[in-house]
Formats: sequence, C-alpha cells, structure tokens
Amino acid sequence: MAGKLRVDLGERSYNIYCGKGLLEELGLLLEPLDIAKRCLVVTDETVAPLYLSRVIQSLEAGGFTPLVKQVPPGEEAKSLKVASEIYDMALEAGWERRCPVLALGGGTVGDLAGFVAATLLRGVPFIQLPTTLLAQVDSSVGGKVAVNHPRGKNLIGAFYQPCLVVADLSTLRTLPARELSSGLAEVIKYGMIYDAVFFTYLEEHVEKALEQKEEVLEKIVLRSCEIKAQIVAKDEREKDLRAILNFGHTVGHALEAVTKFQVYRHGEAVAIGMMMATRMALQRGLISSEILKRLEKLLRRASLPVEMPEVDIGSFLEALIRDKKVRDGKVRMVLPVKLGRVEIMEVDTREVIEALQRS
Amino acid sequence: MAGKLRVDLGERSYNIYCGKGLLEELGLLLEPLDIAKRCLVVTDETVAPLYLSRVIQSLEAGGFTPLVKQVPPGEEAKSLKVASEIYDMALEAGWERRCPVLALGGGTVGDLAGFVAATLLRGVPFIQLPTTLLAQVDSSVGGKVAVNHPRGKNLIGAFYQPCLVVADLSTLRTLPARELSSGLAEVIKYGMIYDAVFFTYLEEHVEKALEQKEEVLEKIVLRSCEIKAQIVAKDEREKDLRAILNFGHTVGHALEAVTKFQVYRHGEAVAIGMMMATRMALQRGLISSEILKRLEKLLRRASLPVEMPEVDIGSFLEALIRDKKVRDGKVRMVLPVKLGRVEIMEVDTREVIEALQRS
Repeated sequence: MAGKLRVDLGERSYNIYCGKGLLEELGLLLEPLDIAKRCLVVTDETVAPLYLSRVIQSLEAGGFTPLVKQVPPGEEAKSLKVASEIYDMALEAGWERRCPVLALGGGTVGDLAGFVAATLLRGVPFIQLPTTLLAQVDSSVGGKVAVNHPRGKNLIGAFYQPCLVVADLSTLRTLPARELSSGLAEVIKYGMIYDAVFFTYLEEHVEKALEQKEEVLEKIVLRSCEIKAQIVAKDEREKDLRAILNFGHTVGHALEAVTKFQVYRHGEAVAIGMMMATRMALQRGLISSEILKRLEKLLRRASLPVEMPEVDIGSFLEALIRDKKVRDGKVRMVLPVKLGRVEIMEVDTREVIEALQRS
Repeated sequence: MAGKLRVDLGERSYNIYCGKGLLEELGLLLEPLDIAKRCLVVTDETVAPLYLSRVIQSLEAGGFTPLVKQVPPGEEAKSLKVASEIYDMALEAGWERRCPVLALGGGTVGDLAGFVAATLLRGVPFIQLPTTLLAQVDSSVGGKVAVNHPRGKNLIGAFYQPCLVVADLSTLRTLPARELSSGLAEVIKYGMIYDAVFFTYLEEHVEKALEQKEEVLEKIVLRSCEIKAQIVAKDEREKDLRAILNFGHTVGHALEAVTKFQVYRHGEAVAIGMMMATRMALQRGLISSEILKRLEKLLRRASLPVEMPEVDIGSFLEALIRDKKVRDGKVRMVLPVKLGRVEIMEVDTREVIEALQRS
C-alpha cells in the first residue's frame, strides 16, 4: 500500500506516491501519463548499482525502452557540461517532446535531470524517483531545478514541475545514517515554519523515523510534501511566502560555502542555520528560550549538529551577502515568531555576529 | 506617438510598445517595471554600431548602469557556449534576481538573451528590443527562447515571457530589404492562419510596408503581435492551437536544414513552406486555387520566393521527419481550409512529394 498526495497546480498538477517497493511498480504508475515509451533515466554511480536494474526492469515490463545516463556522484555532476552530455545523448536518439526524463537518485540527480527536462526541446515530461529522504521531502515539490556555476550553487536553473514523483521508502534502507538525519533536518524545518502539531509529532517519533518505521516515514514524507506544496501553490515563483522555506538556509548556505561543501551535508548546515536563526529571534525577543531548547533537543535526537563551528567571521559574512537571497545588499532572513510560524525580516550583520558569538 | 499592445498573461502580462524613436525613450519606458538598476544588454556586432550607443545613453539617463555583451552575428552565437559566457559575465558582476537582461537585435539575439534570462538565477527580468521586422512580429510574443544544438536549431530552450517589448520602427531603416521581406512572410502568415481582413489589408498595403510608412508598419507589427498573443494566450505551452503558428514552418525548417541555413532567410523558407502547405491543401480539395494564387501574388509583391528549389527528396523528407513537430513518426502539418483559417492535419509523405513535384 502506498500513500498518495496530489499537488494541485492547475493543469500542471501531479501525484506523489510514497511507500515501500514502489520502484517495482513504476511501469504501472507511469501508465496514466501522456508520455512516449522512449525514456531516459538519469542516475549516479552510487545509486545505479543499487536500484537501476529494478527500475529498468519495471520500465521494460511497462513497455518502455529506457536509455540510461550515469553521472558521477555529488555536486560535480550538476554542471552545464554534464547537462550538455545528456542533451547530446537524448538528441542523438532523436528525442521527441513526449519522451520523459526520469531522475533516479538524490537531490543532485533530480536538479540536474530536471534542468535538462526543463530545457530539452523547451520542456519534456519530468519524473522524479527520489532515493534520499532529503530529495523525497524537498525536491519532490516546488519545481526548482538547476545546475551549478563556478560562482555558486544552483545559479543556472528554472522552475519546472515534474509530472510524477515516486518516493520508494525501501531505497532509504541503503542510505547512510548521516543522510537520513540530513533529510530529517528539512522535515523538522517544515514543523518549525508551518505546523506546530507536526513538530510535536516529530518530537514523539524521531527515533522511529531513524529506525525507518514505514508508517512514520510515510507520514513524514507526505506531510512534508503537503506543507511545501501548500506554500508553493500560493506562490509558485519565488516571492515572499515561498521564501519562508529558506528558514535555516541563509546561514546554512553560507556555512556550506565557507567550509567549501566539504564538512557538512546540506541538512546538517540547515540544522545549524535553523539554530542560528532561532537564536537571533530569541535575541530580538520574538520567541521564548523554550522554543530554542525544543529545537535543539529535537535536532540532537535526529543526530544533527546544532553548534556553529569556528569560522572566519569576515568570510562567513561575505558568503552570506553573496547569497542570491540578498536584496539591495541587506540580509533577509527567516526568523521564527512562534512554534510553527516564521516571518521574513531584514537583519543587520551585527545581529548575525552576535548570534555567531553566542552559539 | 507610439502604439501599445497589452499581452494578457495574468500576472506575467506585459506591454509591447511600437513606434519610431522609442529606443531614445527606453529609460522612461522601463520606469514602471520592478527591476534593479544594474542591467545587461546583449547585442550582436551588426546591431551594436548602429543602436547600442543610443540604448546605453537612454538607459543611463534613466539611472541604469548597463553591462554589455556583444556576440557574433548569426546563428553561431545561439549556443550553450555563448550563453555560458553571458552567465559568467553576469555572475561575476554579482547578478541579483531583479537585474534585467535586455536583448537588442534580431531574433537570434532575442532567443539567446531570453534563454539566459530564463535560466540565470532561475529567471531574471527579460526585456526585448527587437530591431528586425521578423523579431518584432514573431519573437515579441510567445515566450519561446532557445539556443541551438549541433543536432538542430532551438533544441535547448524554455518558455519565458518578457516583461516589456520595445519595437522601435526606426531600426528598420538600416535593415536590408531582404530582411524586411523576410519579416513580411511571418506577417502574411498571420493573415493566412487567423485573419482574412488583415490579409486583405496586406494586399492593399504591401508596397507601403516595403517603403516603411510608419502607420502601415505600426499596424502590421501590432496586429501581428495581437494575433499571435491571442493564439498563445489560449495555449501558452505548445499544444494544438498554438501549433497553427507553424503554418509554413514544417517545410520551411526542412528547407532551411537541407540548404544548411545558407540559402534562405527564415522568412523566405517560410514563404516557400506556406506555398507548399497551401498547394497540399489544394491537392486535398480543401481550398480553391484562388487562395493559392492570392498568396503567391502577395508573397511575390513582398519580394519573397514562392518556388521550391531543386532538392534531394530523400534528404528533404529526412529533415522533415527529424523536425521536432513530428509525433509518433507522422508528419503533422498546418494546412489552410479557407482564407484566415488553418487546421492541423496528419500528412502522408507521398502528398509532400506530390506537392514538391508540382511546385
């Protein structure tokens, strides 16, 4: 049995299926879609040995003829160069407009394959098969696709919706514990920004999530997607409402940048970022210290870091300001105002430094 | 005095201004837009000596600080490589989301700059300053942006709307006569597919258009944009209705391809393509021979070619089938059913050969 969520975007609405063993049923799940039988699976060299054969098998059982593009694991593959290799492969095969591109892997593969799907023949059907918790709760909704540029991550991209997302929970079995925790950081974020009841649910079930109890993971994935979908539905392109999804990300991105993406997983940096933003809210008197404590405790139980490491404050601020969420040179940050509610505020760099020193 | 057309696309609606001397008023025309003062003008080496300085001047008078990227003239510049150079330039300058990209030039510059605008930071404001009749009547509406791939034209692209189009009719003064005629081919197309009254207007005014009478050109540009906007508004992404815009283009593209883009201007190939499609409609008994004659006469008066050249039928059919408007291997073509009305039909290659031989 699989859970299902309908993401309502008018004529671009699509379904997210979530449950164990769904990759085996892929051929069936694709059946209702208006797509051609020729398809391209983009995956990486970590995921391919684990899940590619079952995806190919179930595609072929559904009458599809898949091409496969394996890319190196990690952010390196999210480049215009690799995107270009995928264009070449598809176009050499005589790609047509209804031939879908499938992303089998984590967020990196999803972003890359999504960017190609968005731009190949001005847009071909895009199907996500996220195999990490982070990708399942984050990349499944919102339509952000991109490749990196030497100047920064995701600087070249588009907004492009998938026509189907299949989140097979079985794939999380092979996920390193650190990656699972990293995904939980985004899940906790949804509680913090939008849903105090969900935050409480996480406080009650975080260990069960780490143990991969199916009903807990299913609830977590679908509720996270639902929250994100509600936020994004009101504001499909990035404007103010959608910006609340960046809670923890302004500092998180800067932290990833100054540590050259070598130290922290994305979710880990976001965890520290959420702590920093919550501490700044406390400094401003927006919230009580209890919320900071509850957040810290939940993050720790999810095996996530909560403390800011020693960083050079100058480089850190520079990275913060260079981030593309800067408007007219001021730092806009998402700060909690109570559990389950955040607001976007203009923040002075002094407040950032103060929070840095207290962390 | 300038004419104005509002293209209604909900929250992405925008204005097209059309008239003489508008580039001088650019700073003023940009004022109502929510854009940053830093901007990037993409232009080519043919257009730059003619109009760049007045664009820069009027931008600076409006308080803007323009960067400029000059690209080589022609299709060569419409590549991922050149797009990548523009990304580099903008990102090195610390581009932000509200910093616009302006396209000063013909369709090639518009497509390239538009593709960059669509994908830079997942989309920045895009302003078109079309300097050819073809770009003014065709690229101003519809949101198609793209770069080429070694396998074919426009194979990598997106749908992305400008936030403003400024069609300065003075720029047509420096346009070679052949380019003006090429633009008229698309104008005549709008009459054929959508508006018999407009077709008749063109029969009455084609020489005045070639002489660049301002009121005639203004009427032609705005009515063409209006027709295209009406078609596209009903069907923003490429589906069946929008496909009628491809009248003359299926054969036209194939003809451009087999002649390696060396012999015909785009509009010239479309003119021949319209003749071919109309002849096929006549073969099927859909229309009277009078329509074919009126079309031929009007095209000739606009100094456009009407006869299919000698081509290798095999290569021609191959190019036709390779075109991305092919669905399940069948050739879908737009055929006239009366003056001002076309329909999409599945066509057998034999009919194409017959029309080829009769032309």
